[in-house]
Amino acid sequence: MNLGEITKSMQELNNWALESSTIVKEYELENFSQAIDFVNKIKEIAEKHNHHPDITIQYNVVFLVLTTHSAGGLTEKDFEVAKEIDKISFK
Amino acid sequence: MNLGEITKSMQELNNWALESSTIVKEYELENFSQAIDFVNKIKEIAEKHNHHPDITIQYNVVFLVLTTHSAGGLTEKDFEVAKEIDKISFK
Repeated sequence: MNLGEITKSMQELNNWALESSTIVKEYELENFSQAIDFVNKIKEIAEKHNHHPDITIQYNVVFLVLTTHSAGGLTEKDFEVAKEIDKISFK
Repeated sequence: MNLGEITKSMQELNNWALESSTIVKEYELENFSQAIDFVNKIKEIAEKHNHHPDITIQYNVVFLVLTTHSAGGLTEKDFEVAKEIDKISFK
């Protein structure tokens, strides 16, 4: 994707940040248990799209990183998955 | 815990590494789905002990970090949880 495409796609997302060749977002849940529940929902989306974010869980915080390693940068797949995760997230 | 206690406790673990005031371990699973299954098992242990590792999932790799923030370093709780995770892990 070129910068124009990326900028346009970013506008369709809810509070994701562009960091070099990745998009990232931090979600704050109520507690560890809810964080893991959220990760299980992300799993369903990731498996459906066969595209898997890097996920870090620190108690109630879930940090996601999306990029397409095989393409060496961002692709439409990243934005599709991000958009679906936005739909299930609490904020 | 003093260094002697930590050294002794490390010997009771299976391939965890000491990194400053944390213990860390990387697990390689078959795929993303198995990685999430493993994280769900870790959740049960963490909730039982009310002690929660930091967890990073990168497709089939699960990276764990244990420390006791409230104590500013390692405590017996970290080693208890690590030992239980070793019991459920594949390697």
